[in-house]
Amino acid sequence: MSLTIKVHIAAHFNLNLRTAKQTKLTDYNVKIRPKPIYHSNQLIAFQPKMSAAVKSASSAIKSSLIEPDGGVLVDLVVPESERGLRTTEAESMPKVKLTKIDLEWVHVVSEGWASPLRGFMRENEYLQSLHFNCLRMKDGSIVNMSLPIVLAIDDETKERIGSTTNVALLGPTGDLIGILRSIEIYKHNKEERIARTWGTTAAGLPYVEEVITPAGNWLVGGDLEVLKPIKYNDGLDHYRLSPQQLRKEFDNRQADAIFAFQLRNPIHNGHALLMNDTRRRLLEMGYKNPILLLHPLGGFTKADDVPLDVRMEQHSKVLEDGVLDPETTIVSIFPSPMHYAGPTEVQWHAKARINAGANFYIVGRDPAGMGHPTEKRDLYDPDHGKKVLSMALGLEKLNILPFRVGIIVHFNSSKH
Amino acid sequence: MSLTIKVHIAAHFNLNLRTAKQTKLTDYNVKIRPKPIYHSNQLIAFQPKMSAAVKSASSAIKSSLIEPDGGVLVDLVVPESERGLRTTEAESMPKVKLTKIDLEWVHVVSEGWASPLRGFMRENEYLQSLHFNCLRMKDGSIVNMSLPIVLAIDDETKERIGSTTNVALLGPTGDLIGILRSIEIYKHNKEERIARTWGTTAAGLPYVEEVITPAGNWLVGGDLEVLKPIKYNDGLDHYRLSPQQLRKEFDNRQADAIFAFQLRNPIHNGHALLMNDTRRRLLEMGYKNPILLLHPLGGFTKADDVPLDVRMEQHSKVLEDGVLDPETTIVSIFPSPMHYAGPTEVQWHAKARINAGANFYIVGRDPAGMGHPTEKRDLYDPDHGKKVLSMALGLEKLNILPFRVGIIVHFNSSKH
Repeated sequence: MSLTIKVHIAAHFNLNLRTAKQTKLTDYNVKIRPKPIYHSNQLIAFQPKMSAAVKSASSAIKSSLIEPDGGVLVDLVVPESERGLRTTEAESMPKVKLTKIDLEWVHVVSEGWASPLRGFMRENEYLQSLHFNCLRMKDGSIVNMSLPIVLAIDDETKERIGSTTNVALLGPTGDLIGILRSIEIYKHNKEERIARTWGTTAAGLPYVEEVITPAGNWLVGGDLEVLKPIKYNDGLDHYRLSPQQLRKEFDNRQADAIFAFQLRNPIHNGHALLMNDTRRRLLEMGYKNPILLLHPLGGFTKADDVPLDVRMEQHSKVLEDGVLDPETTIVSIFPSPMHYAGPTEVQWHAKARINAGANFYIVGRDPAGMGHPTEKRDLYDPDHGKKVLSMALGLEKLNILPFRVGIIVHFNSSKH
Repeated sequence: MSLTIKVHIAAHFNLNLRTAKQTKLTDYNVKIRPKPIYHSNQLIAFQPKMSAAVKSASSAIKSSLIEPDGGVLVDLVVPESERGLRTTEAESMPKVKLTKIDLEWVHVVSEGWASPLRGFMRENEYLQSLHFNCLRMKDGSIVNMSLPIVLAIDDETKERIGSTTNVALLGPTGDLIGILRSIEIYKHNKEERIARTWGTTAAGLPYVEEVITPAGNWLVGGDLEVLKPIKYNDGLDHYRLSPQQLRKEFDNRQADAIFAFQLRNPIHNGHALLMNDTRRRLLEMGYKNPILLLHPLGGFTKADDVPLDVRMEQHSKVLEDGVLDPETTIVSIFPSPMHYAGPTEVQWHAKARINAGANFYIVGRDPAGMGHPTEKRDLYDPDHGKKVLSMALGLEKLNILPFRVGIIVHFNSSKH
């Protein structure tokens, strides 16, 4: 299913629409607040008001609104009871040191955002991702997997690992993070990876410069185990709900539709207008309790994007204006790093939200896009993102909601 | 299904194995012969000897050994009775001039090698090909389509077409070739097309230099009609059997397995050995009449590849040595141009042979590969071709036969 949402903005529509400049300058200097950005913590305090009829039907309303890819939500965090044992085991293994962004991927994979992926890709998965943007399951079904989720190592590390089958993963500060089991080491052809993921090899792609260029010439795939949940201790961990926690929360709220909105930039009232309109449409379609998952990306972003803490604060301000209803909105951080890979990446953004329980995904102009690093043009055709998303293999069960609202596409900060 | 063919070469195996150099120098200067390269023209003269039992079962043995992609073999050649009318119609349309290689694609598409594709790709098909290496059919099924089959036009031609919906196609010498109907014109992002097809944008890719770099900045897609079958008048047209003709011939021969072998270089006895061994294996598997489709590529090849006429003559010599049995071998020309796009292109090579009726496809080391144009290494990992082919979407019904024979991989001329 695919809907085009048309928002008609009447002149008397009192929505405090700001110009792009004003929006960009809003609230960037305020401090992080420790409490959630809705007025009360919905995860704790929200008690949905239900009629008896809704209550009796509630067993049918659960996070199975949409199945996680592969049927089961992956959870790779070692049970607390086994943590000691596994830690001892890991200490005896060859060590692989993770970068900050590797650790973000460990976080992403361990919580099941990339379900059914259970670790860093082996070559078989890597090639499928690179050539088909999806993975074939053993039962013949297909799941979307557009970005290679891989761990690079250098020659020296490969040498050190030798023929060992399991390795321990160390965080950037040297702490033990997890284990990668039954590993496979294969060549990291950076040029091919970049060309097939970004559709360009031009110098200056942010993820390439930050992650791929400095990386080693080998990739190591295997089954991941994480010794304990990944935390950042930056005052924002309470926003980092796992797919499991989100699904539980959608259940608690008796949601019968979840619509996800990916952001990597400040929210503005045009966005809010769109989200409210989407909710209205879903109600018109017969859904009783559509819940918005407002889901800013929290991993690596390029230097000139607005930092996460500032964005979270800005989201808060917009929400406090009362434009979005906290009772039907969940704000949470999506822990993935950005690739800025346009039509290839938007599939990842949508797929991860399936795993978090969203069955509607809002897509705008030039999702995950940016300017071409060396030419004066957009890197991607601004319409390709939603076109590719609507034809993407393995995303058939997700309802794509493209939007084309004049007032939004003219905002400088509209990319998401 | 996937088989690994192991060829054991005993010391007494009397097969006149030549060195690569000797093979490469063989017979390149002889003239083209007008008759087929097997001793008698199999397409006319072959009368299979059948037992009564085979005869009675013959209705079950037909080219439906494998269905064409999309279920129906595409045939875009206008019936002779309508040719006059369509020609008159075409003459009044805006004209688009084809290059030599565009014309090869017209040939390929018109005969159904790219079934279910019915013309040059519109953007919807182009994007699916680029991102997923396949097309989704209306019934939800998936067919493989790894190469964008597109027609580029320049600004001036686009201007001239204006908002017209149908255009006429002119051959390189100005003759009327066909019609493209219900056209759609969209941007030709060369960089993205190259990066996603080849996995590199390095200067010096033969197809890019010959076709894409000089091409216009627009692509025009639409439904193709060809006024009459494409002929080259080079003395080799009798080798250019269409998928329909091949399927008919497989029926005539009562084939119960067709194994296709793609070549773009001279055949050598190592190849022949492999093909004979494949036949032996198929017989062991219970097939009664496996037929080899020896299928050299006849379209554009790079300057340092051996020209088609010389290759056809060389094939003839090898076959005349009696190494391959003409009664169970069909030699025909595959009219596609070469991309040299490795794992992406080998899918096209296999898919096109499905449409020609082959249900087994032999794949070797580094199919459709070449040296990296600017670095001292193979452009593709030599194992990726067969790996990607074995996991390719839409090729599930084809039996992939990878080979790994020491004696073959060391031949310089082994790439195919």
